[in-house]
Amino acid sequence: MIHATKSERKPVGKSDFPEMVERKGKGHPDSVADECAEACSRALTSYYLKNFNGRYFHHNVDKAAYVAGQAIPKFGGGIILQPQEFEIIGRAIDTAVVAGKLIPIPVRTICREAIYDVFRYTFRNLDVDKHVIIDARTKSGSVDLTGLYNQEMNGGDKVPLANDTSFGVGFAPFSVTDNSVYSIEKYLNSDKFKDICPASGEDIKVMGIRNGKDIEITIANAMVSKFLKDKSEYINALDQVKEGALKIADKFKEDHNVKINVNTGDIPEKDLLYLTITGTSAEAGDDGQVGRGNRANGLITPGRVQTLEAAAGKNSNNHVGKLYSLMSNRAANRIVNELQGDVVECQIRIVSQIGAPINKPWLADIELLTADNTNYDVISGKAKEILQAELDDYLTLRQELLEGKFKVW
Amino acid sequence: MIHATKSERKPVGKSDFPEMVERKGKGHPDSVADECAEACSRALTSYYLKNFNGRYFHHNVDKAAYVAGQAIPKFGGGIILQPQEFEIIGRAIDTAVVAGKLIPIPVRTICREAIYDVFRYTFRNLDVDKHVIIDARTKSGSVDLTGLYNQEMNGGDKVPLANDTSFGVGFAPFSVTDNSVYSIEKYLNSDKFKDICPASGEDIKVMGIRNGKDIEITIANAMVSKFLKDKSEYINALDQVKEGALKIADKFKEDHNVKINVNTGDIPEKDLLYLTITGTSAEAGDDGQVGRGNRANGLITPGRVQTLEAAAGKNSNNHVGKLYSLMSNRAANRIVNELQGDVVECQIRIVSQIGAPINKPWLADIELLTADNTNYDVISGKAKEILQAELDDYLTLRQELLEGKFKVW
Amino acid sequence: MIHATKSERKPVGKSDFPEMVERKGKGHPDSVADECAEACSRALTSYYLKNFNGRYFHHNVDKAAYVAGQAIPKFGGGIILQPQEFEIIGRAIDTAVVAGKLIPIPVRTICREAIYDVFRYTFRNLDVDKHVIIDARTKSGSVDLTGLYNQEMNGGDKVPLANDTSFGVGFAPFSVTDNSVYSIEKYLNSDKFKDICPASGEDIKVMGIRNGKDIEITIANAMVSKFLKDKSEYINALDQVKEGALKIADKFKEDHNVKINVNTGDIPEKDLLYLTITGTSAEAGDDGQVGRGNRANGLITPGRVQTLEAAAGKNSNNHVGKLYSLMSNRAANRIVNELQGDVVECQIRIVSQIGAPINKPWLADIELLTADNTNYDVISGKAKEILQAELDDYLTLRQELLEGKFKVW
Amino acid sequence: MIHATKSERKPVGKSDFPEMVERKGKGHPDSVADECAEACSRALTSYYLKNFNGRYFHHNVDKAAYVAGQAIPKFGGGIILQPQEFEIIGRAIDTAVVAGKLIPIPVRTICREAIYDVFRYTFRNLDVDKHVIIDARTKSGSVDLTGLYNQEMNGGDKVPLANDTSFGVGFAPFSVTDNSVYSIEKYLNSDKFKDICPASGEDIKVMGIRNGKDIEITIANAMVSKFLKDKSEYINALDQVKEGALKIADKFKEDHNVKINVNTGDIPEKDLLYLTITGTSAEAGDDGQVGRGNRANGLITPGRVQTLEAAAGKNSNNHVGKLYSLMSNRAANRIVNELQGDVVECQIRIVSQIGAPINKPWLADIELLTADNTNYDVISGKAKEILQAELDDYLTLRQELLEGKFKVW
Repeated sequence: MIHATKSERKPVGKSDFPEMVERKGKGHPDSVADECAEACSRALTSYYLKNFNGRYFHHNVDKAAYVAGQAIPKFGGGIILQPQEFEIIGRAIDTAVVAGKLIPIPVRTICREAIYDVFRYTFRNLDVDKHVIIDARTKSGSVDLTGLYNQEMNGGDKVPLANDTSFGVGFAPFSVTDNSVYSIEKYLNSDKFKDICPASGEDIKVMGIRNGKDIEITIANAMVSKFLKDKSEYINALDQVKEGALKIADKFKEDHNVKINVNTGDIPEKDLLYLTITGTSAEAGDDGQVGRGNRANGLITPGRVQTLEAAAGKNSNNHVGKLYSLMSNRAANRIVNELQGDVVECQIRIVSQIGAPINKPWLADIELLTADNTNYDVISGKAKEILQAELDDYLTLRQELLEGKFKVW
Repeated sequence: MIHATKSERKPVGKSDFPEMVERKGKGHPDSVADECAEACSRALTSYYLKNFNGRYFHHNVDKAAYVAGQAIPKFGGGIILQPQEFEIIGRAIDTAVVAGKLIPIPVRTICREAIYDVFRYTFRNLDVDKHVIIDARTKSGSVDLTGLYNQEMNGGDKVPLANDTSFGVGFAPFSVTDNSVYSIEKYLNSDKFKDICPASGEDIKVMGIRNGKDIEITIANAMVSKFLKDKSEYINALDQVKEGALKIADKFKEDHNVKINVNTGDIPEKDLLYLTITGTSAEAGDDGQVGRGNRANGLITPGRVQTLEAAAGKNSNNHVGKLYSLMSNRAANRIVNELQGDVVECQIRIVSQIGAPINKPWLADIELLTADNTNYDVISGKAKEILQAELDDYLTLRQELLEGKFKVW
Repeated sequence: MIHATKSERKPVGKSDFPEMVERKGKGHPDSVADECAEACSRALTSYYLKNFNGRYFHHNVDKAAYVAGQAIPKFGGGIILQPQEFEIIGRAIDTAVVAGKLIPIPVRTICREAIYDVFRYTFRNLDVDKHVIIDARTKSGSVDLTGLYNQEMNGGDKVPLANDTSFGVGFAPFSVTDNSVYSIEKYLNSDKFKDICPASGEDIKVMGIRNGKDIEITIANAMVSKFLKDKSEYINALDQVKEGALKIADKFKEDHNVKINVNTGDIPEKDLLYLTITGTSAEAGDDGQVGRGNRANGLITPGRVQTLEAAAGKNSNNHVGKLYSLMSNRAANRIVNELQGDVVECQIRIVSQIGAPINKPWLADIELLTADNTNYDVISGKAKEILQAELDDYLTLRQELLEGKFKVW
Repeated sequence: MIHATKSERKPVGKSDFPEMVERKGKGHPDSVADECAEACSRALTSYYLKNFNGRYFHHNVDKAAYVAGQAIPKFGGGIILQPQEFEIIGRAIDTAVVAGKLIPIPVRTICREAIYDVFRYTFRNLDVDKHVIIDARTKSGSVDLTGLYNQEMNGGDKVPLANDTSFGVGFAPFSVTDNSVYSIEKYLNSDKFKDICPASGEDIKVMGIRNGKDIEITIANAMVSKFLKDKSEYINALDQVKEGALKIADKFKEDHNVKINVNTGDIPEKDLLYLTITGTSAEAGDDGQVGRGNRANGLITPGRVQTLEAAAGKNSNNHVGKLYSLMSNRAANRIVNELQGDVVECQIRIVSQIGAPINKPWLADIELLTADNTNYDVISGKAKEILQAELDDYLTLRQELLEGKFKVW
């Protein structure tokens, strides 16, 4: 049952309450953990579908032990004392039984290669072989394909059944602060910026706080030692980061005053700088975990409703915690876009019912902030239709996830 | 800077928006992970203080690899195929340097024993030696005590400085749904209830959804096989759980209709029951992680503001993510209690400034829902004073944490 | 084919060449590794036979990672900084397939418990829970019981077939030096001696060198700190060890001069003593491995023929490297005993042929040192019969191994 | 004290007793383990000497957990289900203390890279990144360089002191069987042969048994699946191996009859062939360990005196178990070469005295088989001089080991 509620509150971006927004960049240990988990899920799904006639097998690789290394960076280089360790944790079908014969599935190999690839395409200055030990500690499981096959996992003509009672929450649109934080990280981690400032590592955390018209953005960026021969080069590089961030923030700001700070934890007089060999704090002390970073929409917004559900690594067939997190955001965005002018802000919460078809949630609630002079009944009816359409379109979502078309963090 | 905002919205418990509340019980893998992390922090802190003249050393043991086992439970018993594995992950000072001499600190031993104890006092039907492999994979660090000692870590006469820019959020009071969910878990995991129903394992997840006046509570309780000789005993035990939960819910409900469901994932006709040997789903497939379970107030409330910060395992000296999570909840509760009649609901958000004293946040915001006829200026002034008092009282908080006086999950 | 050769050389104990003999005691890391491997094999065999109608399944758990801990012993106690880690490595059938249904076998649980027990019955002053992390990293395998069952593994009415081309070597009798070394360790590790000298740990290495009539025996014994309050007590305890050893040596010596040294690596003036908390050097730095300690007869004798084959942990059904090591010693002892007066010394070497019945070696050679006036043809004929009888009696050997009736190290 | 004994026995190669000789090739799991351990020792030594003014630091990395993977080879390729795992185990100084300041040494990184290299230069068809997980689990230690430096570890102007009471044994020359076995492996693992027969993997075990004039050589060679498209190609490749081996054996044989068998464990009619994806049995089930393979002279000779001492991975400064194993073989070879015509065979045993200079063993014994008409007193005097010269020349030996000039397995 989907219902809609009309909200009278101000949109978040206009609220008197301060806004707080954070984004952990693609090289942050928590983001790396999320990306690895999701990459494992994609790789497993792909293998299952390809080798077993399009059948979708159960897996849930949404935990990890990402143990930081130890390193002593210094200008121009440094020493890696201990490698990072990344181990994906979870469950995955590793044996199919066909007519009593066991067909093994190389889960550990599949996951290790997927993780390897993530480290390769995420970091420019990390030598995966030397700097990271990669493993998979999944528990095994078997599926018997002999007789009648498990319908809910089939992904066949029936709608998959919810695996649990879970929440999903989403909202749209992004506020000015949201957009600034999100886009600054994207830009600072783009090839374009890395070409300008190769010393900028991929581990970037952007935090934005709006208080009235003032937006203060704090960036922590792990700098790469080999590109910096001394402190003055380090400081120049931070200036490039600041400049790059300002350029992005200027695109989004309206009548806001934007201030950017970079690496505020540095104490230059004590030579305490955010210097790394590989561009990530995981090389020396900062462990990461799946589901502790950005929510499914790419942001952490403690001033808004948020789910704690980790989307990364879960199966995209019937794990409603994952699916509803993604669907609620997709639907909210569509509602705001398609009903532009009428809907100012939209917030969606969905609760599943274990064992029920995934397109029939136990409860879904759309909070709508509408423009003046809107026919609320018409608009809320359309909004419900859009949400239902997203719920029904689970196969498209699954396919897009499989193709890695969008990030879940 | 602390500021307060007057809110006109309805209290959460009266809102037209559905409420969603969840609590993972003490035997749930995520709660076990949190408790182990916090126990390690307590044990390390205690060792440091005792062996180094009251000095507080840095540590951050807020990650873990909790890898589920494999088991085949059956009525009356079952087989453990593979043990669970619990490894705490993080950093801790393991060497003190005094006049060039190295004094080793048995971090791994301390953590292993702390985790051992958690498993022992959490579970009634789990043989830790046989069923769990426990380890600590912390990265080492040293502290030089020879010269002038690191002031911000000293806990001496100066206020510790914030280690990072972080959020903390909290609220009070609990709604009827919050209270029901929280207290049901507490009761079902009490000695009193376990004596009535020994088959009830400690891994209990309670989820409550309020829609208008209807509260539906769903309980997932891992049942212990050795106390159950067949399916009818299993079903009887579920009835005891339901009855126990109803009794608690009745205490809190006002004009609500409460419905309780237990183990809704069961499919009895296929013999798919929530049966375990040890009382936790971690014995067979459900991995756990630190910071993925209950927030610092003991609940998951995706309908409210929430931080993603994991409190468990972080140092209680200057980790503002942890401290502000706890302080915001403590202050909110005090405000609601001390200003009873005037403040109906209170929500607090605090943002730190890296490098500033922890009692001087960059920004703190108190959202107040006041009763009619309240002098808002007076009330909000008192609320600010209470919050500042909590911020200033960091030593009491630290001491209480050290003594394990309250849970952080 | 068994053939015998008459040897003209002097018996080893009378030889002009110096004799060198070593025995690693039951608490030495290499012996512990051997005992754990063998205990795992026993436990697995036992489970297989019991749960699958007397069928013997393949396994080979003859490797281990026994990683030493770190400790700082001091008189009266000390600190364990890091636990020891013991992981058995190898292969074992963990799934039986019956009519297409998978029956899991708890290999990891079985091995962990077996290892646990070894540590418990080997050491008096080691707290297994706190001081050792135990695991099994065996690779899985499955066996299909549905159709015709693998004959060579059946242990049924057919003779098992040799799994490989391997050597086995053995000799008898023990020389005076052999007997002294062997029996000193046995005595020092007996309950009787431990009651006299509780400070004597189980990690004892005894080395004996005979040069002409002089036998010099060097004992390294890890002493247990909690029983010793200072250096003088330590020295007293060493005296007890020396005295105990002398008493045993006196029983065996003929016209030899025996000298005993204890803990010759100590440098008392620098406080470098062989002090431990738990009674084994594995607590602090000395790793162990399977197959690097005593040969199957309990000794290391670099002055004699020796196999490098590790007996411990191998299957006792058709692993000829293990079986021939044991059979050659058993046969040599029987030959010397049953043909007493005629055979002065006997040395046996057996080579298997992969795929042939285990009682039909490719080649077996008995070297006989006979007394004067012996009918060599008769005697050598009897010796061959005894060896063949031992080869044929593989089921008795297997049963005795299963019951743990004799050590393989 | 060095003494010599005149022996009247026949040289081993002429003896009536059967000879048994084995060599595990460079790709055999036990040889890989030895080579990795020695490579770690070389790399650590090199780092210590280079970074600390030529000082030699303690280390002992002579154990390993080499856990086999799981694979399903088939003609043309196959699937790697699980990677191999290689973890070096031992102790190594990882912290130097200079004037109270800690200088970290990247032991784990050094060892990991050394192991990586071993796998790379050993195997042609193994992708180290994908097929092997490499780690080092060494225990840490520190050395204080501030004051007077540990003399016995200095390698300065004083002779290092023996670390233990240990044996070393060696002999020369190789018999025909010894030479055949040794050289066949060398040839089959040469680039020359691999170009002829790319399907021949590096995991080769050669066993030779001489009985009278008959030498039977059995070769087990892991074949590489991707070069073989069916069983007939497999059989052709085995023929190439056989042919190559015969060619080498022909060079050494005198009046012997040589027979070569390849992969005798195959059961072609059941498709049980020795097929691998990577050229080593470690990919699927065969674990390896340090010190369980070839002795320091490259052979396993259970018919001769042998030490159980593992040379690989031990420090080359004062580990007498390692040094005496090498020195005894070097001296025996020199004696046989330099006293050619006079000395027919030579066997050396050396026993150290813990704490005494390494060039002053407690006892050394040279067994000499001399030609007729030899002045034994003169010859034995010269032999003793040669042995003493080798003992005194420990620095050359150490340097050659550091440069990897000869294998210790």
